[in-house]
Amino acid sequence: VARARAISGFPEWLPEQRLVELRLLDGIRRQFELFGFAPIETRSVEPIEQLLAKGETDKEIYTLRRLQAEGDERAEFGLHFDLTVPLARYVAQHLNDLKFPFKRYQIQKAWRGERPQEGRYREFTQADIDVVGRGSLSLHFDAELPVLVHEVFDALPEIPPVTIKVNNRKLVEGVIRAVGVEDVAPVMRALDKLDKRGAEQVARDLEELGVASGAAAKLLAMAEVRGGGEDVARGVRDVAHPLVEEGLEELMFVMAAVEGLPPGRVVADLSVVRGLDYYTGTVYETVMNGHESVGAICSGGRYDNLVEGGRDRLPGNGVSIGVTRILGRLFGQDAIPLGPKTPTVVLVTLASEEARPAAAGVAARLRARGIATEVFHEPVKFGKQIAYADGKGIPFVWFPEEGEVKDLRSGEQRAVAVEDFAP
Amino acid sequence: VARARAISGFPEWLPEQRLVELRLLDGIRRQFELFGFAPIETRSVEPIEQLLAKGETDKEIYTLRRLQAEGDERAEFGLHFDLTVPLARYVAQHLNDLKFPFKRYQIQKAWRGERPQEGRYREFTQADIDVVGRGSLSLHFDAELPVLVHEVFDALPEIPPVTIKVNNRKLVEGVIRAVGVEDVAPVMRALDKLDKRGAEQVARDLEELGVASGAAAKLLAMAEVRGGGEDVARGVRDVAHPLVEEGLEELMFVMAAVEGLPPGRVVADLSVVRGLDYYTGTVYETVMNGHESVGAICSGGRYDNLVEGGRDRLPGNGVSIGVTRILGRLFGQDAIPLGPKTPTVVLVTLASEEARPAAAGVAARLRARGIATEVFHEPVKFGKQIAYADGKGIPFVWFPEEGEVKDLRSGEQRAVAVEDFAP
Repeated sequence: VARARAISGFPEWLPEQRLVELRLLDGIRRQFELFGFAPIETRSVEPIEQLLAKGETDKEIYTLRRLQAEGDERAEFGLHFDLTVPLARYVAQHLNDLKFPFKRYQIQKAWRGERPQEGRYREFTQADIDVVGRGSLSLHFDAELPVLVHEVFDALPEIPPVTIKVNNRKLVEGVIRAVGVEDVAPVMRALDKLDKRGAEQVARDLEELGVASGAAAKLLAMAEVRGGGEDVARGVRDVAHPLVEEGLEELMFVMAAVEGLPPGRVVADLSVVRGLDYYTGTVYETVMNGHESVGAICSGGRYDNLVEGGRDRLPGNGVSIGVTRILGRLFGQDAIPLGPKTPTVVLVTLASEEARPAAAGVAARLRARGIATEVFHEPVKFGKQIAYADGKGIPFVWFPEEGEVKDLRSGEQRAVAVEDFAP
Repeated sequence: VARARAISGFPEWLPEQRLVELRLLDGIRRQFELFGFAPIETRSVEPIEQLLAKGETDKEIYTLRRLQAEGDERAEFGLHFDLTVPLARYVAQHLNDLKFPFKRYQIQKAWRGERPQEGRYREFTQADIDVVGRGSLSLHFDAELPVLVHEVFDALPEIPPVTIKVNNRKLVEGVIRAVGVEDVAPVMRALDKLDKRGAEQVARDLEELGVASGAAAKLLAMAEVRGGGEDVARGVRDVAHPLVEEGLEELMFVMAAVEGLPPGRVVADLSVVRGLDYYTGTVYETVMNGHESVGAICSGGRYDNLVEGGRDRLPGNGVSIGVTRILGRLFGQDAIPLGPKTPTVVLVTLASEEARPAAAGVAARLRARGIATEVFHEPVKFGKQIAYADGKGIPFVWFPEEGEVKDLRSGEQRAVAVEDFAP
């Protein structure tokens, strides 16, 4: 018992919290399926060299060894640190069994051996969708993803409203090249730090990268452009570069598709760059309004090729929802009201040993109507049975002998037939 | 790509199989909740010493290390090999936040580093329920579990009918003691091998354990007793031992509660012993009819104390459904018909670029009615759009311009309004 304790970075919830998490996961899955994404689940492990191939993450990988393995036996496998590396391997492995464009969702845990802090865990649940094309991938999907993300969060009343920020890396790259910078990637990474480090520090970072101060000022001005498609077009109208034109056109296409959504739900924001070199077009970053400090809770974007070295190019686009980050924040701030500790809706009381079959019969008929029901396990005083229901947050207590049900929230007790009862 | 391959013992399914698995998991969860079990999810790792404390499993544990850890740094944590060790730790850790009897379900992966074979995996999904009492636990729950297991499988039409075997370890122990054996545990373990090794070999095993041949014959005769409660009572009527009386009474109580179920669904079977010393009363073992050779697909039983060394005794009872074992068998034998590769019900065709808003509008209205819908991504020939639907098993193709829908299974096309469409 002394050793039964939490492990830093491996969060766990109480049943009343897990019930909230399941509502969240069910809601996410429902929207993913309504948009025609198919479920897959991948094994938790991948060969270590495949995990390392994605670079920069090596320090975060947990490797697996059998306890009884020989001392020098090298670990072969590691736990995946995201759901993209497994997707790439899965698609390559099952290329001929999948139909393209392949739209998949995947709701699973991932693991990173990094130092835990708010919003960062060693074990966490991600809910990912990606659409992968064979050869090419229509811009249609770039526009569909923010609509889907909006629908996901719109259907989750317990989660605060979100802002979905959209940008296009071609647009950013075009602006960077237009101000005379040739080594684009490090400048992109510097701009990605704007949120965390602030404009002054990023200006110094750009200077260190050899960006002239006039050029740096233009980049920082670009990063302040946000709003609708027209605002972006105005913001970059003085920049002449073919990538700017191309990126702007794509961004306008995406923004046109979200026009019917609530104002401010999806905004173009040229400061959204995403750190990974991986992304090549549209990028997304979603924050919970009022909880921006915890970071993005749903992000992603378009990439050119999911599987390097294959016969076909496999361009894709996807986003990943940080389920554990959302709940860690909201539970930590008591920002979600917790309900009952059980799914049970009705507790059927047990008056005597002889009453077992009758009580079990009522319970079976209620369950057949889809109403979660327990029979109290022993014929003790009703007060004790009611206290059990009350302690777990079970709203209704049933008295089979009287044919009555008591609503514990209102205190009201009334005659009822099993077939008429609507909780 | 060359390295994208399966890893032995880590099964994965195609989307059309994962859709079947999700129906199975949803069905299991639904029944668990209808009986008032509350969900929890525990972290994937436990301290190695806690995993080892349960004995005999040390060779099967996967330990975790950060890739960049110092060479001599000892691994602290291992992946759990079942959901019982984590439950015990969770209950001890949250003792004062939980209400007892604590009824929990938990559907999660577990890992064992053992040699893969049919029905045994290195990574697998278990669906567990347990009820844990504080101080004592009513026999009520022993009787409720087989009813619940029946309801779970009864509501899963894709799974073959099952037989739920019930026994009571007190009864078995009483018979063993009555024939003069004092060291009960090894004899119990020998009897547990009856299925795999056969009566002749077990007779020799018993002889080696020093059991006299007359006594061994009586034990093997006991193991042939099965049927209803009355059959068991007849089968042990000549054995006089207080444990036999106690065990028989408990078994009769359980069998009385399952009387209304389909004949043969729940049977008392005195050969069911379960290998683990852990169990102390009612034990369960469920097989799929016609698939007995894959082993038990749902088993468990009553135990005296979930958490050793605590202030209160925490007796419990639970069963574990081997989801991966069930599906590995049925997929392996093509014994489950596979359906579509996607949840999509309707594909809305795209006639031209200009038609995007109208197509998106139809899709949004269908989704609002709970119908999973995709819009085809580009305005190509309808034949190509229909081929996409056909390839993924999408049953309906919608033509917004005509206001018509085509059923790809029947080939019939008819006029329809979004608000009237019922797939």
